[in-house]
Amino acid sequence: MKSLNQPLKIADRVFQSRLLLGTGKFGSPEDMKAAIIQSGTEMVTVALKRIDTETETDLILGQIDREKVQLLPNTSGARNAKEAVFAAQLAREALETNWLKLEIHPDPKYLMPDPIETLKAAEELVKMGFVILPYIHADPVLCKRLEEVGTAAVMPLGSPIGTNKGLKTDLFLEIIIEQSKVPVIVDAGIGSPSDAAKAMEMGADAVLVNTAIAVAGNPENMARAFQMAVVSGRIAHESGLGKQQDYAEASSPLTGFLNEREDE
Amino acid sequence: MKSLNQPLKIADRVFQSRLLLGTGKFGSPEDMKAAIIQSGTEMVTVALKRIDTETETDLILGQIDREKVQLLPNTSGARNAKEAVFAAQLAREALETNWLKLEIHPDPKYLMPDPIETLKAAEELVKMGFVILPYIHADPVLCKRLEEVGTAAVMPLGSPIGTNKGLKTDLFLEIIIEQSKVPVIVDAGIGSPSDAAKAMEMGADAVLVNTAIAVAGNPENMARAFQMAVVSGRIAHESGLGKQQDYAEASSPLTGFLNEREDE
Amino acid sequence: MKSLNQPLKIADRVFQSRLLLGTGKFGSPEDMKAAIIQSGTEMVTVALKRIDTETETDLILGQIDREKVQLLPNTSGARNAKEAVFAAQLAREALETNWLKLEIHPDPKYLMPDPIETLKAAEELVKMGFVILPYIHADPVLCKRLEEVGTAAVMPLGSPIGTNKGLKTDLFLEIIIEQSKVPVIVDAGIGSPSDAAKAMEMGADAVLVNTAIAVAGNPENMARAFQMAVVSGRIAHESGLGKQQDYAEASSPLTGFLNEREDE
Amino acid sequence: MKSLNQPLKIADRVFQSRLLLGTGKFGSPEDMKAAIIQSGTEMVTVALKRIDTETETDLILGQIDREKVQLLPNTSGARNAKEAVFAAQLAREALETNWLKLEIHPDPKYLMPDPIETLKAAEELVKMGFVILPYIHADPVLCKRLEEVGTAAVMPLGSPIGTNKGLKTDLFLEIIIEQSKVPVIVDAGIGSPSDAAKAMEMGADAVLVNTAIAVAGNPENMARAFQMAVVSGRIAHESGLGKQQDYAEASSPLTGFLNEREDE
Repeated sequence: MKSLNQPLKIADRVFQSRLLLGTGKFGSPEDMKAAIIQSGTEMVTVALKRIDTETETDLILGQIDREKVQLLPNTSGARNAKEAVFAAQLAREALETNWLKLEIHPDPKYLMPDPIETLKAAEELVKMGFVILPYIHADPVLCKRLEEVGTAAVMPLGSPIGTNKGLKTDLFLEIIIEQSKVPVIVDAGIGSPSDAAKAMEMGADAVLVNTAIAVAGNPENMARAFQMAVVSGRIAHESGLGKQQDYAEASSPLTGFLNEREDE
Repeated sequence: MKSLNQPLKIADRVFQSRLLLGTGKFGSPEDMKAAIIQSGTEMVTVALKRIDTETETDLILGQIDREKVQLLPNTSGARNAKEAVFAAQLAREALETNWLKLEIHPDPKYLMPDPIETLKAAEELVKMGFVILPYIHADPVLCKRLEEVGTAAVMPLGSPIGTNKGLKTDLFLEIIIEQSKVPVIVDAGIGSPSDAAKAMEMGADAVLVNTAIAVAGNPENMARAFQMAVVSGRIAHESGLGKQQDYAEASSPLTGFLNEREDE
Repeated sequence: MKSLNQPLKIADRVFQSRLLLGTGKFGSPEDMKAAIIQSGTEMVTVALKRIDTETETDLILGQIDREKVQLLPNTSGARNAKEAVFAAQLAREALETNWLKLEIHPDPKYLMPDPIETLKAAEELVKMGFVILPYIHADPVLCKRLEEVGTAAVMPLGSPIGTNKGLKTDLFLEIIIEQSKVPVIVDAGIGSPSDAAKAMEMGADAVLVNTAIAVAGNPENMARAFQMAVVSGRIAHESGLGKQQDYAEASSPLTGFLNEREDE
Repeated sequence: MKSLNQPLKIADRVFQSRLLLGTGKFGSPEDMKAAIIQSGTEMVTVALKRIDTETETDLILGQIDREKVQLLPNTSGARNAKEAVFAAQLAREALETNWLKLEIHPDPKYLMPDPIETLKAAEELVKMGFVILPYIHADPVLCKRLEEVGTAAVMPLGSPIGTNKGLKTDLFLEIIIEQSKVPVIVDAGIGSPSDAAKAMEMGADAVLVNTAIAVAGNPENMARAFQMAVVSGRIAHESGLGKQQDYAEASSPLTGFLNEREDE
């Protein structure tokens, strides 16, 4: 079964795991650490504000084994390209990585991303040497434009962030996956392992999960459930899923048999 | 993590696996055998007609380790209670088990089950000492009535058999799961691992899969994907999934931080 | 446009309107009367218990013009065939009609109908000369069996009664509509005019609405909205709806035109 | 019933009808004319290329009564802002109107709109005195930005154009409707009258329909069906739709009644 769980390449780095983890909303650093381990993730997002960069004992960074796990600082909270570029530079300096989840949402209620400012910031940050993974609406044209300015992946949303509503944008994710030349990471809205599995079955390259794990009754076990779901969905994608159809032939035609007997 | 993957008890037998496998539609006996092993299943359905009970080398039975796997003969093809009872007796004699998947579908196109004949046959067969698992529409009242006549489980459908359309009956499955005192095994329509995971997340006790594995490009790997999805969905159910909501608070409020900096 | 809004025949009566109205839950008799008029309905259901049959001034019956509108007493509250048959006889005597909506739901929470008792009562009541319209789950086999014992129509549900959740059973309604030789009236769950229109577009012969009109902010206007939606959906069904497709050719290919200009 | 069908104001023009019609794909000019009349529309889109501006007998324009119906030329086929601005100027000169449906889709397969170029062109065209109605993805942030540069409305899509797949973007349309200060016209993907009714029930100000009417078996009758559905959905929106709920109290509790009788 050599085809199971093919590795994922983003920029110049190879990942065995296709599950990215967000670090917000956990009840405790211990819960977060346990979830990271059980999820098998090799890339976690961190919000700049929550990082105390001046002490060794930072509650978030202290839980992450940076030998194994790529830090992906995000620009959450930035309302325009200027703020995002500024935050990116701070993050690079503080965390010593040029990887960045670009996230610009001027709307404080639904936190929907801004397509215009995101493209503008992405173009600028790519030129500055960042490895950019932009968080965006499931907009196929925007994804192509981001790819053209050199982002390392695209991160379209499944539904508004933090809602657990699943893959409401599936029709558009399918188009994005069909057209994209860079990895497609489904972000936001994934509320359960079945959502994650479905994204992978559709051909997404990876998924990012945060709320659904962090606020679970048992985050550690839920992380394990997501780990399995992502691998399951990937295997299913590679193993050739059957089509939906309106009806099926009986798989087990006993009728003829019974008829024969009754004919005796 | 002791709570992961609690065993399932049906009648007096305990199962570690919550995935049942159908044996129809496989391209070869070898594919079927590999799928059974990878799925981790402990119960497989077999159609009476396809069994050659007189030879040691039967293509289906020869692949199944009956020490580990419970045979569940089905009455597929029976069009009424009388035919089903007759088929059940043949199956008991031929396969030396009193376990039975009761399946009565007079409709040759959509293979939808008959509620009236199924209840009638279930009542009769329970009295004859069979362990009955009836395949039915996702009908909450019928499920209660079957439970009352003594079936060992209920097997409501997700969508018409062989269609791969998933959990179209979810609203009714939820009611069935809430009300049932016997195990609820979701049968028919499960087209992908994400469907199986979703059924388990909802609280189903097990799922039965056949077409989606048997006709996959690689049935062996697809069986493994389903195995993981079922365990994943079960863990998620036990770990406490979060609720859907209309919007979320930002998990990573960087804005304030940037404002402070900009204020300097 | 002669094909618009073909009349509907149930038993030996012809209806111009394909919208049936329930009379429960209205805030006042005046609201109910106004809704009946605006809906254009020619058949309304009434629950036996709410009828005061001994006075001329009954609040419900007094609002209904029985010259124009067929009364359809229902057996709501009956928990088995015996209770339903008893209620049917009372209704026939009190309301002087042999039309009956047969409704048997032993489950006090979700009010899901009982397939076994409903078939049993239907068979008996047909023999007693009743015109039976049975309320049932969207079960294609049960619908055929009811038709075979002589019911005048079948009334499958869209979703559990009173939930406003719409046509959750659409996959099964399609099969029922394809197979039925008696009118199919979609009952229960229709929460908005768009749900009613969709049922009609699918080919349902009529719909029954109660909660969505009775509890609306303005029941009179909502009744008018449903009247239009039902006619709209029926016209659409008769006018040939297009198929869904994965993508479309541009309807307005301006590119070539612009290219030509730019080539000059 | 004074509240029925409130008029709609876009820029400085008042419309009684909330249904916009596209003129592509009709089988004949006669079909188109009949559909326009039956739809009751007061605004129709036309693609520049299909207009023969030099003859009185133009097949499309000749069918449209410009006293009653606002022409809305579209820039379909334009792949970027420059092409769209050029097309807009041609349209204004040829058709003597400054109203414009701005439509930019570089993707020839799915015809998804470009958010960046659309905003750029909108800003420029507003300054040039055009009344701009931009066709866009259901992107709440983009809608706000278009409103801020002065578009007269926003036209988010329900699903990819020409697919008849309905309101797949409903979650995002709800946010757009909640936040918008200019009229929201749902465009693209509306495949049946029930889709149109649902958009109006959600609070959309209008809908634009083309394919579903033009390719219907009977376009004239289908136009009438859409006319009724749009009015129906609007009335329902204004009349206060009930909420979905998980279960309902019985509206017709006959049980007590029967019990009393049986107790006698």
